[in-house]
Amino acid sequence: MDKRWDFDLPAGMVRQAAENEPLDEKALSEAIARGRVVVLGNRLRSGVVSPIAVGEGTRTKVNANYGTSRDAGTVEDELKKLRAAIDAGADAVMDLSTGPDLEKMLKLSLEKSEAPVGTVPIYKLAADVVVRGISFDDVSEEAFIEAAWEHCRLGVDFITVHCGLTREGIRQLDMQGRVTGIVSRGGSFLNRWMKATGKENPFYTYYDEILKMAAEFSVTLSLGDGLRPGSIADATDRGQVSELMILGELVQRAREAGVQAMVEGPGHVPLNDVRLNIELQKRLCDGAPFYVLGPLVTDVAPGYDHLTSAIGGAIAGAAGADFLCYVTPAEHLCLPTLEDVHTGVICCRIAAHAADLAKGLPGAADWDLAMSRARKALDWEKMYELAIDPPLARAVRGARAPADENLCSMCAELCAMRE
Amino acid sequence: MDKRWDFDLPAGMVRQAAENEPLDEKALSEAIARGRVVVLGNRLRSGVVSPIAVGEGTRTKVNANYGTSRDAGTVEDELKKLRAAIDAGADAVMDLSTGPDLEKMLKLSLEKSEAPVGTVPIYKLAADVVVRGISFDDVSEEAFIEAAWEHCRLGVDFITVHCGLTREGIRQLDMQGRVTGIVSRGGSFLNRWMKATGKENPFYTYYDEILKMAAEFSVTLSLGDGLRPGSIADATDRGQVSELMILGELVQRAREAGVQAMVEGPGHVPLNDVRLNIELQKRLCDGAPFYVLGPLVTDVAPGYDHLTSAIGGAIAGAAGADFLCYVTPAEHLCLPTLEDVHTGVICCRIAAHAADLAKGLPGAADWDLAMSRARKALDWEKMYELAIDPPLARAVRGARAPADENLCSMCAELCAMRE
Repeated sequence: MDKRWDFDLPAGMVRQAAENEPLDEKALSEAIARGRVVVLGNRLRSGVVSPIAVGEGTRTKVNANYGTSRDAGTVEDELKKLRAAIDAGADAVMDLSTGPDLEKMLKLSLEKSEAPVGTVPIYKLAADVVVRGISFDDVSEEAFIEAAWEHCRLGVDFITVHCGLTREGIRQLDMQGRVTGIVSRGGSFLNRWMKATGKENPFYTYYDEILKMAAEFSVTLSLGDGLRPGSIADATDRGQVSELMILGELVQRAREAGVQAMVEGPGHVPLNDVRLNIELQKRLCDGAPFYVLGPLVTDVAPGYDHLTSAIGGAIAGAAGADFLCYVTPAEHLCLPTLEDVHTGVICCRIAAHAADLAKGLPGAADWDLAMSRARKALDWEKMYELAIDPPLARAVRGARAPADENLCSMCAELCAMRE
Repeated sequence: MDKRWDFDLPAGMVRQAAENEPLDEKALSEAIARGRVVVLGNRLRSGVVSPIAVGEGTRTKVNANYGTSRDAGTVEDELKKLRAAIDAGADAVMDLSTGPDLEKMLKLSLEKSEAPVGTVPIYKLAADVVVRGISFDDVSEEAFIEAAWEHCRLGVDFITVHCGLTREGIRQLDMQGRVTGIVSRGGSFLNRWMKATGKENPFYTYYDEILKMAAEFSVTLSLGDGLRPGSIADATDRGQVSELMILGELVQRAREAGVQAMVEGPGHVPLNDVRLNIELQKRLCDGAPFYVLGPLVTDVAPGYDHLTSAIGGAIAGAAGADFLCYVTPAEHLCLPTLEDVHTGVICCRIAAHAADLAKGLPGAADWDLAMSRARKALDWEKMYELAIDPPLARAVRGARAPADENLCSMCAELCAMRE
């Protein structure tokens, strides 16, 4: 019999989350108690946020990032991206702003997003140091914890905290060597801070404090992977796995403290290692929900990383990853445009749906069946309606209209569907 | 000890094909003799065509289709697509014209393409019936065979012939029922012809004649899958597998006649069944090269089928599929534009490379390693040069140029690579 824990979730959130799942409220509650599913929703946003369930037995979810950087993306621009992401079907969003107006941006995000909003509270400190020139020594351990408290109090629904990145993990990484070193922005900042101050990661040292705030606000911890691989050559190395081992311990401590926790994962991973990565996380973290970035199955396709990550994401989802972070065509090149955000969400949703089909999630195949029936009937209006991106499907066919409106310009009268 | 067969290939073609492979000429010759690899190149185009090897131990290859239809695509347009496909890195192309000027189109294709050119000779007959109104009864068995002969004599390097689609296969399909029936244009035409005339498939009945012409011109047979599934619901059904069983027999007969043969495969297949499909083909067809269309892992994404097929293609390639037919963003909607062709080839090449990485093809990971080293060094010129689509990568970053030319507008000074 699996262990069960008590998570004090706001009234109604589980019921709400169950509405969009093949599980009923009872089954979902059971999965939550076993730590296999988390529900994203800050207590303060109860009634405002549409909480979502992430984990075993639920639909594979999609997250979209947006946010200002110093060079690009005004608050106004980025709020448009937030809306575009939700309109395209993102289940959750993360405000990853590092530019000016951090607090204003976040408050507006929480005001405007019905989807759960996540953040990486440490970015505020990184911006202080890197952009505003504050020295590492002037960033206290308390400042890390306070940054996280601040976001919880503002109503953020889930926070990425790199609690498992320790001095020992860095030692293992340095001893081993890497092609692309640390590629996580948060991980990189923490590493530099640890090296400059000689101190341990405050998120690890004061993890109990993090648990306390998460419990108070029903904030889900997204345990960040500061040592995720940033290249095929670095995938599934000792640095990555050493951090994952610690994340497994932190998941256990979170559950014992009544805090919902999920685990973040790679990154760049060759196709043949994707399943291994998912299965390893599930074992080491006792089935905690897994939130992956990609994985990107090759390094060579800048401009097409929405595709390299959809390949990895679909395989990861089929293997048990629960939550896919989108990657846009701008990845590795620049801040995404509004159009990139839309494309990124749709492509990630395709990966998530392909995974749900592969896992045999109840009901998932109904969508495909309806589409194929519409195809066989040459019912173009129905096909547009069922398409994952209806306006795009309509526009593509419309731009090259066929002579016979029942057919398409690919095969015309040779259409096999007519038979 | 595996069996060996004698394939009389034009002098120098194996050596030429080996130049772009991790195998040397001797190893490649051995794989060819075992029927595990085919080399595409019509004897008549010796010295003109750049022959390619398709099969076990070679790079996963990419094919791009183009060609006129009645509604769209002039000869001039389609020749531009042929060029765009080769420029984007397609290893082979198929002229799938069904519109007017079929012969002119094909002759110009063969004149202008250094890449191996494939065709589906039956399309000429389909166009005669469907577009020009000739009755099925007026299409003789001899006409099927003559259409194939004509293409061999013109210099076509590989032909798709649906030799395994029999009356018994159709019976199995009809008995079972399907959501989208037959979706192969060639298969659909053959089925209608068989039903109208009461006769057996001439490509099956007169297969020895097909073998004779293939041997004479060193044309590789691409044994078509007329019953490939056109929807997730129809994947891996008895209709599909019954045809595959016959294709296995036809591969054996081809080898015994000194004819190179590869086998075509699906189609629409859920992610969890992709590997099964590849392994089944390899068993039933004694390791013959497998040429797949997609597979598309969901039906719901018209406008994004370059992506749904890249997911399936990458998994298929990793599982042993040897040759991926590209799918463009126009699939299921219209005839692709020039830009669609470019996008389709690049996306299919990404899938093929991801597969080669996964299979550990010697040398495949060098590309990723070089890219990641350039990334770590923030060497943007090198990154562009190594990108699978250099102009696109340059344009995307250029359109949103960062303040610091060494960085990018995503993370700016927070760039983890700087560390």
